[in-house]
Amino acid sequence: MLTYDFADLHGDSMYNHLYNCVKNDIAAGTLPANEKLPSKRTLAKNLGVSLITVENAYAQLLVEGYIYSRPRRGYYVADLQRQAPPPKRAVTTAALPARKKKPLLSFAQSSVPPDTFPYNTWARLLRHTLTTADEHALISDTSAGGAAPLRQALARHLYQFRALQVQPEQIIVGAGTQTLYNLVVQLLGRNKIYALEDPGYPQLAAAYRANDVFCRHLPMDEQGLCADVLADSGADILHITPSHQFPTGVTMPISRRYELLRWAAQSARRYIIEDDYDCEFRLSGKPIPPLQSIDTEEKVIYINTFSKTLAPTFRISYMILPPHLAMLFYEKLGFYSCTVSNFEQFTLAKFIDDGYFERHINRMRTYYRNKRDALLQYLSSCPAARALKVEGEDSGLHFLLHLDTDAPDAVLKQAAAAQNIEIKFLSDYYYQKVNDNSRTMLMNYAGLEEERLYPALDKLFGALQPYLKL
Amino acid sequence: MLTYDFADLHGDSMYNHLYNCVKNDIAAGTLPANEKLPSKRTLAKNLGVSLITVENAYAQLLVEGYIYSRPRRGYYVADLQRQAPPPKRAVTTAALPARKKKPLLSFAQSSVPPDTFPYNTWARLLRHTLTTADEHALISDTSAGGAAPLRQALARHLYQFRALQVQPEQIIVGAGTQTLYNLVVQLLGRNKIYALEDPGYPQLAAAYRANDVFCRHLPMDEQGLCADVLADSGADILHITPSHQFPTGVTMPISRRYELLRWAAQSARRYIIEDDYDCEFRLSGKPIPPLQSIDTEEKVIYINTFSKTLAPTFRISYMILPPHLAMLFYEKLGFYSCTVSNFEQFTLAKFIDDGYFERHINRMRTYYRNKRDALLQYLSSCPAARALKVEGEDSGLHFLLHLDTDAPDAVLKQAAAAQNIEIKFLSDYYYQKVNDNSRTMLMNYAGLEEERLYPALDKLFGALQPYLKL
Repeated sequence: MLTYDFADLHGDSMYNHLYNCVKNDIAAGTLPANEKLPSKRTLAKNLGVSLITVENAYAQLLVEGYIYSRPRRGYYVADLQRQAPPPKRAVTTAALPARKKKPLLSFAQSSVPPDTFPYNTWARLLRHTLTTADEHALISDTSAGGAAPLRQALARHLYQFRALQVQPEQIIVGAGTQTLYNLVVQLLGRNKIYALEDPGYPQLAAAYRANDVFCRHLPMDEQGLCADVLADSGADILHITPSHQFPTGVTMPISRRYELLRWAAQSARRYIIEDDYDCEFRLSGKPIPPLQSIDTEEKVIYINTFSKTLAPTFRISYMILPPHLAMLFYEKLGFYSCTVSNFEQFTLAKFIDDGYFERHINRMRTYYRNKRDALLQYLSSCPAARALKVEGEDSGLHFLLHLDTDAPDAVLKQAAAAQNIEIKFLSDYYYQKVNDNSRTMLMNYAGLEEERLYPALDKLFGALQPYLKL
Repeated sequence: MLTYDFADLHGDSMYNHLYNCVKNDIAAGTLPANEKLPSKRTLAKNLGVSLITVENAYAQLLVEGYIYSRPRRGYYVADLQRQAPPPKRAVTTAALPARKKKPLLSFAQSSVPPDTFPYNTWARLLRHTLTTADEHALISDTSAGGAAPLRQALARHLYQFRALQVQPEQIIVGAGTQTLYNLVVQLLGRNKIYALEDPGYPQLAAAYRANDVFCRHLPMDEQGLCADVLADSGADILHITPSHQFPTGVTMPISRRYELLRWAAQSARRYIIEDDYDCEFRLSGKPIPPLQSIDTEEKVIYINTFSKTLAPTFRISYMILPPHLAMLFYEKLGFYSCTVSNFEQFTLAKFIDDGYFERHINRMRTYYRNKRDALLQYLSSCPAARALKVEGEDSGLHFLLHLDTDAPDAVLKQAAAAQNIEIKFLSDYYYQKVNDNSRTMLMNYAGLEEERLYPALDKLFGALQPYLKL
């Protein structure tokens, strides 16, 4: 007969305690397979507990399969056929490595200054969403392409500010551009050759690699990728950053754009993915009209993100599919739920519709222009000035800084790292290592707060100075 | 000499108007390639506009590549090498199809009643996040696995309420389970055979198909999938719903669980994905302890979601990776940004830590139990009662309803559809069509508001009654 101690339950319920006692005895083999258990009534009497306690415990054991019942005969111990558990892997007990410690300051990472996010406006608009939006749409509409209000707001915004004419149904919303890359591969097919710019954005290549697609990394000239190189590569899909090539900063001229569109038009397999990741932040003149706007053959997939304009941890990006690809998307991938929460989609729609987004962009453009100007001012007047040459300072949130030095890039990086400052060179972004010594630094200045900028610059150029030709 | 009319700008700026005029003339070929443009000063004088207007227009044309400059000679029209644009595809002008109209009422779709979401609490906690959270972490930390506060809150929650001991670093947060499936394929590899339950969740198979992985759909017995069938299939990865099999409702007994774990232990290639999609909603007894809790060999990937507990449009799911897979994840996929917005991750962390989640679950369990009881009460007393048999009503948010009828499932579905009611049968979820006439309906009652439930039931069983053996 089963005997268990109910004296000290440590806050556990009677039934749960009994369930655990019997379960452990069965799992340990103390109660052997196919042994008959006492009837509920007998066990209750013997343990001095209520019948309902035993009933609940037996019911839970039954549903989990620790015991089985035979009609009119009672309950029996199930045969778990369980061998002794093998020893746990050593790794289980080891703590997982904590995240890498970030360097104190970084000119390598693109980020958004945390104090520029419009927290109050966002909180207010979100409350508005939660209290006034159509509850059914808000809670239940998981349409693959995104929530209707956001797609409509984006279509209006693109028309007003970029002169793009797109139907809301062509716009696919996703939790970051990486999520959209995954969808693009599933849409266009893994059996294609994808061409990427070399040098290029390493996370982009990593995303394609994780998707097991074959990538060609193609060299560029001073206008970006050219159609001859592209045609020779055998590529089907071209992924480019024509407004502001990452990392070289090149803006692709209109003639080259037409050249690439003609390349795409030559085969039904060919498409161009236009990654317009920081087009909002040209610091002089107007944003460059996207390739999408001159695409008459439905060959361009346009991708943009709110990571740069609002925050990288604000996971909203979107792509514009040509109509025939949009239809293919609904057919092939329409089963997916959109990856962005409706709360944020609805709120962003209102943020755009009410003009907050436009004002935020304008404010940020001024903010970045001031920061950039301060940086240029520093570079032109610091003790290292004679060995520094700036390039591409108008095109977006990073520019190039050529260093007059004989030192290899790696040595310069190490000198900066010794000061807890992270810098990256053009050579870090090449897939085909043509030259380890680009002597060209990327200046990603967006994320550094102004009060940390000057001390960081002093430290950086203090560390680099011994290597520069002054 | 260029002559443009500046009389009516329609609110456009002077410089933008001039830029557009010249651009259009170049694109149209009116200004031929390599033609020299007037100097800025001459053009300004001739048009009667300021020099800065011409300077800005030329600068923008230059950066976009419509014109080029030759040092000390001036500006020239670029050679766009552009053929006449081909006619647009017909499809471009056609409006994309609007979304399918949903049937009036559905017992086929699982959803969450929109009025049960804790809107006020959420808005309050989100404001708290926006005003008090560490701004740097909130805006800049895009760690692939998710935000630390949420992963810590989940680890505590899983320990307190499911007795699972996991390190926060083993938890990977993603924008819905579909996003996690994509990650799992990228983690475990596309060169594996994935085994799915048949019948099963169609969107799951669709997600694997979109990822180009080879799936085997394996038949089950009354305890779920068995190891023999699994071993014969050659599968490497098993994806199952052991707490509450979808759609059959089977709870996998403990003996079968050990059997599957032994299967997995036999090869380094093998893993089990445990999809615990509605474990919070067992309506009697306690939640079933997950397979993960008895996995001593690091073979189980546990997946759960907040889609059922909060809202499907609230895109937060998570998976628990065994430690060695967590390390592989950081190594292989650590470049990804987490797909869930930090605003929602931080807010959900507080929602869990402050006990709101636990209270919400308890409230929802009572809510669903009442709704389920009302439904069972209806089914046992309605005119069709004699031809109806309920199965699996305790295990989660759907149960099975066996119909005593000779009519094929398709006929019954049509009869319901004629009343604008969507129903689905077990036969709809089979991959290998063994039997088109399961005569077993799925009752997904969660999403239907109480006031619509009885009229819907009256309509449904009114429509089915002629086919039932009464």
